[in-house]
Amino acid sequence: MRKRVLVIGGLAAGPSAASKAARVNPGMEVVLFEQGEHISYGICEIPYYISGDVAEVGLISYTPTSLREKKGVDVRVFHRVEEISPAKRTIQVRDLRSGIMATEHYDRLVIATGSRPRSLGIEGEDARNIFHVKTLDEGLRIRKFIEQEKPKRAVIIGGGYIGMEMADALRRHDMEVAMLHRNSLPMAGLERETRERVREELEKHDVNFVAHARTEGFVVDKQHRVTHVITATDSYEADLVILSLGVVPNSEVAKGAGIRVGSSNGILTDQRQQTSHDNIYAAGDCCEVKNLVNNRHMYIPLATIGSKAGWVAGENAAGGKAVFRGAIRAIAVKVFGIEVAQVGISAEEARDSGFDVVTETITAWSKVAVMRGSKKVWIKTIADKKSGRLLGANLYGEEGAVLRANTLVVAIQHRITIEEMQQWDLAYSPPFTPLWDPILVAANATRKKL
Amino acid sequence: MRKRVLVIGGLAAGPSAASKAARVNPGMEVVLFEQGEHISYGICEIPYYISGDVAEVGLISYTPTSLREKKGVDVRVFHRVEEISPAKRTIQVRDLRSGIMATEHYDRLVIATGSRPRSLGIEGEDARNIFHVKTLDEGLRIRKFIEQEKPKRAVIIGGGYIGMEMADALRRHDMEVAMLHRNSLPMAGLERETRERVREELEKHDVNFVAHARTEGFVVDKQHRVTHVITATDSYEADLVILSLGVVPNSEVAKGAGIRVGSSNGILTDQRQQTSHDNIYAAGDCCEVKNLVNNRHMYIPLATIGSKAGWVAGENAAGGKAVFRGAIRAIAVKVFGIEVAQVGISAEEARDSGFDVVTETITAWSKVAVMRGSKKVWIKTIADKKSGRLLGANLYGEEGAVLRANTLVVAIQHRITIEEMQQWDLAYSPPFTPLWDPILVAANATRKKL
Repeated sequence: MRKRVLVIGGLAAGPSAASKAARVNPGMEVVLFEQGEHISYGICEIPYYISGDVAEVGLISYTPTSLREKKGVDVRVFHRVEEISPAKRTIQVRDLRSGIMATEHYDRLVIATGSRPRSLGIEGEDARNIFHVKTLDEGLRIRKFIEQEKPKRAVIIGGGYIGMEMADALRRHDMEVAMLHRNSLPMAGLERETRERVREELEKHDVNFVAHARTEGFVVDKQHRVTHVITATDSYEADLVILSLGVVPNSEVAKGAGIRVGSSNGILTDQRQQTSHDNIYAAGDCCEVKNLVNNRHMYIPLATIGSKAGWVAGENAAGGKAVFRGAIRAIAVKVFGIEVAQVGISAEEARDSGFDVVTETITAWSKVAVMRGSKKVWIKTIADKKSGRLLGANLYGEEGAVLRANTLVVAIQHRITIEEMQQWDLAYSPPFTPLWDPILVAANATRKKL
Repeated sequence: MRKRVLVIGGLAAGPSAASKAARVNPGMEVVLFEQGEHISYGICEIPYYISGDVAEVGLISYTPTSLREKKGVDVRVFHRVEEISPAKRTIQVRDLRSGIMATEHYDRLVIATGSRPRSLGIEGEDARNIFHVKTLDEGLRIRKFIEQEKPKRAVIIGGGYIGMEMADALRRHDMEVAMLHRNSLPMAGLERETRERVREELEKHDVNFVAHARTEGFVVDKQHRVTHVITATDSYEADLVILSLGVVPNSEVAKGAGIRVGSSNGILTDQRQQTSHDNIYAAGDCCEVKNLVNNRHMYIPLATIGSKAGWVAGENAAGGKAVFRGAIRAIAVKVFGIEVAQVGISAEEARDSGFDVVTETITAWSKVAVMRGSKKVWIKTIADKKSGRLLGANLYGEEGAVLRANTLVVAIQHRITIEEMQQWDLAYSPPFTPLWDPILVAANATRKKL
């Protein structure tokens, strides 16, 4: 009998793992179960689909049919895995169309159940004009709602990066946008200076950023539509509400089988993406990941990490010996007219991790200063005085911030020191980068504090 | 008596060294000699000054007065150093205005005499409408010539990166441009595929690229103006001629003092930028530099290298212990609508250096493919099969090529392997970079060949 690899979850890490397993070991049968209708689509593109920057057709990378034909993966949509029995090496799968439960045997299992949006737990949250931005279906429904009902006032609850992207998308549809956020500044986790600049950019683009706003209720009309969002101190009219409060790992089925999870409820794996149980691998937003900067397991639900870990889980499920060492966390987001990026750990995380933290901030030209159209890039470096290593950085600017953040990723990931960075032989060409690239300006300034 | 640091040369490495020396050791007297009128200006901006992208005022970083006032350097322009006497620790300096020669004593000397353009050695080369692009004066004269004489036909002799930038600048003035190049493809040293793409881009923008063209003579009229450029097989009408044949080190004064030079005639230094003689340092385009990829000394006349080496020479001349480890060579140039970059060594250089060379080429989207305005980036990787290291890369594309090249600089400089690159936790954000950044696509593809 052919050996069987079963994969649970069809969004990002799941199809990565399944495709890799089928390629590495074509003799194995690879079956992927997905509870929804679609697989393998770009969640991160949804705000851009809503804004109109991306056409619908671009969102889906593989259909169940194309994943079968091109990658040799047997895909079963509308199938929800409800139980894993490691001792018997079986899973219980419910066909959501018929309601029938079936038992499927596996030799190797890959759990890629992803994440789900946090909810407020407030009555009215299921109203028909309240949306998360977490599935393709929701994305399609938001755009349809905007086209059909022409909402004029939007309230975004949550000031993280999905909130930023949605604020831009909704302003493009000429909506009045209020953003309710529980802290004083948006984008928790970034450095204070960056967050202040983001807030300024939101306000510059007429987003009503409401700090310290705790949503306490919704006024819902007879058509089951929210008309007002109620906070402790105020009320906000709303034709459309976006809930973007972050995500939590879908790890319940794994936990039910006794698989170990971390403090954030994300599944714990080793470098081979194996869970606490033999023959069971996991990858993606249902997992924690080792942060390579401080060696701590963290919950970092990002597609970049899930895709790479998915490959490794799939390869090893098929008998390989691949390794995924971990991540440093690299986040980039467009906030209206500026590029914003965070790479590595924050100054606060660095202090909590026991580093002797030194920070420095610089502003430098992205291109040669006197070139027409040159813009400035702001960089904050977070370094360790003892080792001289770069631990993290924030960058923002009208141009050239995100790709430079990616250069700093390499410094952080390879534990390169500020002194070594000063020696980087970066290119110089007036239309693209000055003689002293902002990265070198930042390294030189930081060095003086070490 | 105060100790004296003398610096010869006022363009890039010289002012870097002088400023650093004055800062590191304010007790020393620092004197800089420059034979021309100007110091500390941006040679690389000159084509952009000619095109109109840069205003004149932007070209000069420091005047003799501002370098004295802000950095504490005593600057003497129109002073040419004609002899170095290491045994006596003196130099002979001629004041070019009076013709008087003086002897100046030094405790430490920094040679930063730069480079000069190669010439053809053909009669008529001194005609009044033939220009190099090597000094600020020449840049000013070219622009003035264009404004006053409205040339219609330009001939550029040489197809290197100055040639590319000048072709763009002159086409912006609506000139017919012919480029005479002695090889079949422009941009010697880059990979064949890149050079073909560059040639295509030139032709797309109506530059008449003439391959295998050996300039044999000039027809010069009574006003001492070239009217035709003569090659072995043809004749090209010209109202303006640009000579861009590359540069050679100005190392004669150093050689005259017995200072060791390398095979390209560039001055040889150690990591502290000290020459073969005690108390004499050198930096910039008059020097060779250690290529960190193959550990060979090479002539790489780039401002990025000269500035860093200049700092180190200055710091050490003032009694410091700074180190400049070397360079990997990073070149970036705009060729009309595309960004072109070369980092590290070429496939041919890699083979000559004894590496077991593997190359791979990929094309991938710079932003998420379906985002409006997304363009493709082409990457060729040059790797060593034995160590798995990235040795070099070429990149081109309408966007996102140069800053990505800078990320690859770090891989090359830190001897990072292709396998390690596959694990890079690069950011992903649809308006800036896809889930699999072109760098990761290149690493994944290259890995399969290792």
